[in-house]
Parts: sequence; C-alpha cells; structure tokens
Amino acid sequence: MRDLSGDHRLLSLNTATVRRQGDLAAIVEACARHGIRAISPWRDQVEAVGLAPAVAAVREAGLALSGYCRGGMFPGDPSQAPAVRDDNRRAVDEAAALGAPCLVLVVGGLPQYARPGSAPSRDLGAARAQVEDGIHDLLGYARAAGMPLAIEPLHPMYAADRACVNTLAQALDLCDRLDPGRTGALGVACDVYHVWWDPDLLGQIARAGAERMLAYHVCDWLVPTRDLLLDRGMMGDGIIDLKPVRAAVEATGFAGFCEVEIFSEADWWRRPMDEVLETCIQRHRTVV
Amino acid sequence: MRDLSGDHRLLSLNTATVRRQGDLAAIVEACARHGIRAISPWRDQVEAVGLAPAVAAVREAGLALSGYCRGGMFPGDPSQAPAVRDDNRRAVDEAAALGAPCLVLVVGGLPQYARPGSAPSRDLGAARAQVEDGIHDLLGYARAAGMPLAIEPLHPMYAADRACVNTLAQALDLCDRLDPGRTGALGVACDVYHVWWDPDLLGQIARAGAERMLAYHVCDWLVPTRDLLLDRGMMGDGIIDLKPVRAAVEATGFAGFCEVEIFSEADWWRRPMDEVLETCIQRHRTVV
Repeated sequence: MRDLSGDHRLLSLNTATVRRQGDLAAIVEACARHGIRAISPWRDQVEAVGLAPAVAAVREAGLALSGYCRGGMFPGDPSQAPAVRDDNRRAVDEAAALGAPCLVLVVGGLPQYARPGSAPSRDLGAARAQVEDGIHDLLGYARAAGMPLAIEPLHPMYAADRACVNTLAQALDLCDRLDPGRTGALGVACDVYHVWWDPDLLGQIARAGAERMLAYHVCDWLVPTRDLLLDRGMMGDGIIDLKPVRAAVEATGFAGFCEVEIFSEADWWRRPMDEVLETCIQRHRTVV
Repeated sequence: MRDLSGDHRLLSLNTATVRRQGDLAAIVEACARHGIRAISPWRDQVEAVGLAPAVAAVREAGLALSGYCRGGMFPGDPSQAPAVRDDNRRAVDEAAALGAPCLVLVVGGLPQYARPGSAPSRDLGAARAQVEDGIHDLLGYARAAGMPLAIEPLHPMYAADRACVNTLAQALDLCDRLDPGRTGALGVACDVYHVWWDPDLLGQIARAGAERMLAYHVCDWLVPTRDLLLDRGMMGDGIIDLKPVRAAVEATGFAGFCEVEIFSEADWWRRPMDEVLETCIQRHRTVV
C-alpha cells in the first residue's frame, strides 16, 4: 500500500468538489497554486470555458487528468438513440483532447430520467439491457480513439434516476461480456461513496484487477445523510473505512490517483476554494 | 399469481403507516372498520397502549398479524450484550403473545448507531459478525418459543446506521449458515423498498423459497426521494415495478399477506387515517 503521508502527489481533484466556487480556469489555477497535480473535470465545466481554452489551461498548468466526467445516460426512447450516440462520442473526443486516461460512464437509470422526454417506464431490466447495448456501441468508437471507458457503479439509491448499474459485480459482469479479453478498453471507476456498503466489496475489487480498475474516487458517507445527492462528506468526517478499500485497490496493481469527489450543497460548496483544497490535501495525507 | 382485484383480504397494514394519526387502539379500530384483516404492529406502539390491552384489542377485532416489528440491533459494545439479548428475547415473547407469524429483525449497523453509547467504529465487517452471532444466539430462544425470525435486508443507504444486512443474498447466506436444514425457524422479510434495485432480485426470491419467505412488504420508491428514511411512497406513486416482484414471491409458494409499510413525514402521515387506509385498499386491488 502506498504511503500518502509525505506529500499529495497522488491526489486528484474532481472539479465538481469546488464547482460553486469558480469556473474551470479558476480551479486549475488554484490546483496549481496548491501543488495539486491532477484533476478530473466535468463536461459542463469544460463547456463553460470552451474545450480549447480548457485544454490549454490544463496543459499550461502542467496538470494530469485522472478521468473525465462523464459519458453515459444510455436508456431512452428509440428516437433519442442518435443523440445518445453522438453525445457519448463527443465525450470520448473531449476526453481524448484533454488527455484523460478514461471516460467515466454514469450509465443512466430509467429512460424518463436518463433522457428526459422518453416514455415513463418502471422496467429496470429493460434499462439495463439498453445500457449494455449502449456501452457495446460506444466501445468500438472509444477503442479506435484509444480512450478506455470506466463504468461507475452508483449507489443503489440512484438506480432509478442516475445509474442502473449499482454494484461492482454488475459492472464487472458487463466488462466480462463486452471485453472478455480484458484489453484495458473497458473497466470500472470505483467510488467509495457508492460501494462502501457492499458485503463483497473487497472480493470484487480483486476481481477487477489492474486491467479493469481505471479510477478510484474518495469522499465519505455522513450519518445522517440529509440529501441523497448533495450531502457527501469530506474524507474522515463519515463512516467509510477508507484505508482497507485503498489497500485492496492498490493490491490489484492500481497505480493511479486518489480522486476526491465531493458534492456538498450545505457545507463544502459554501467554503472558500482554498480551504476546501487545503482540507483535501490534509485528509489525503492522513485518512485516505 | 393471486388475484387481488376483487377484495383486500390479503392486505395487511404495518401500523407505522398511520403512526402519527392515532395509537394502536385507534388503528385496530380503523382497520376493523375498513375490513382490513391483518396488521403488523411496532413495539413502541404496543408499549404505548400496553401489551395485554394490545393483545386484547387485536383479538377482539379478529385481526391476524403478518409480523411484529421488530427485533435486532445486534452490534454493540460487549457491555451491552445482556441488554441486546434481553431486549430481543422480550421481542420474541411479545410477538408470541400477539400471535405474530414471525418477528422481523432489523439487524443494526455500526455499534454506535445500533446501540448508542457503544464505541464508534467504521468496521462494517465486525458489525456483520456481531449480527450473525446475535441471530445465532436468539435463534435458540425463538425456536423454543415457536417464533420464526425474519431477517429484513435494508437498502444499502441504511448500512451504517440501521442494518448492515443489505441484500437478500446476504440475508439468505446467513440463513444457510444458521439454519442449514431450512426448518422454517429463520427466513427473510422481503420489503420492495429495500430490494427493488437489486439486479439479482428475482433469483434471490426464488432461492428463498416458501420456507424462508416469511413476510412481504410493499410501498413505493419516489423520484425524487427527499428524505432517506421518511419519504416512502404509496404503491403506484413511484417507480417500483410491483407486480413482477409479487409474482416471484408467490411463485415460491408464499401465501401470506401483502403488508403495506409507508413512512411518509411530508405526505401520508399528514392525511386522515381513513383516507390513508382507503388509498391502501384501492392500490392493493390495482397496482400491488
């Protein structure tokens, strides 16, 4: 297990963590100032400053990327299929332009939430089949672009409206079916917030192996959690036993960044950017 | 699959559904008035009117029980072990006095939440081991009392603070280890709210079989869900595809009640008891 206590060269900042405090240019500047070496930007934040300026800012700051957020949202009415395909291909292209090591996929839930305007459905099995078809379709394009796809299983509380892939086992089953050769073109993003509760967590991390463990995200689970989406905790403030999870991830051979991703309407989004980054660095060195 | 459309003789009311509208005596009276033939009471509601009066009220109203809520909360400091044991044995005795077909177990999460005052821990594996020991310990007592224990897997969003058994597979693994003979003394309570998202839901229901499917609970999952605990929906108002789940449960041979259990701070707890019961009956006949 790597020793993080001496510095924060393995810390990456998911830019949603400070999305309320500034635009991508301001975040990149702050990361450079705090010696943070990597980020994982969101598409809307890139779009807000423009792709070319975002690429330039990242390059000038000497930042690496730990991922790009996000493709996915596959379920939808047949009439939406061209939009789903084009939208995801653009995400692959943007990820490549930015030099991301993978495109994170939040696969979508029921069609009326994944692609608003689609006919309402309660058929989670059908949504899951659409997800599999969608990843299959995108994989050829992503492979040609040299961009690995990282399926992010989301916590089961998001199964209806955000992602109907809800466990590492389910994500890895998809990988087994769509990339049986373990080529590295398809894998998972393991975010502790989504998987900490899983009785088979350590076993499934081992199953992923280095070929399929494409990203590792940290934050914490607060008790009580006051909002299903926007009440994530800073590492160390909640109940997730972080170090054993990282130990398992690194035991696969994973050598990437520990990416901090915190959505926190009532707390961290209201603090100054510098305070948030300083806290991320301090917790990275002590509790991650 | 049973036809529920003609009447509501298979409807049971979990009394938490109207806990704000009246005490257990008032709820029993209302059920009798609405032709509801079964209830599943909570311990605090029984305690509020007294066990003997509760037993008498249920008997006089001619009500059956579909369960008794609840035993469990096993994890805790060693000093709390006698309280855990005595508390659960009393729950078994009360369930027997009331004529319940099973005692529902909400097993507890981390010790500081399951048994306040216990030393804080992030070790979910240790909590799970305490749960298994606790059920093992209680099972002998419950068997002697002729009271089946129904482990209720709770949604993963409750893993830290309410129950660290979070899937039917995990609950059934416990059953396999603690009651390998499938004697009927140990099984599961399947609540759609907790398990609807599970990719292996139908397979695990089949695995339970009639010997282990001790209770079936219905409500609905709302999108958005505004509170992790107290924002359950009325059947038909959310996204759970209820009928396929009931079909799978009944395909095991399950012949019990469909128990309505809704915690709804902002909606159903604020409506008149008669309106809630009438709606439960109507939805039972149409969407359950």
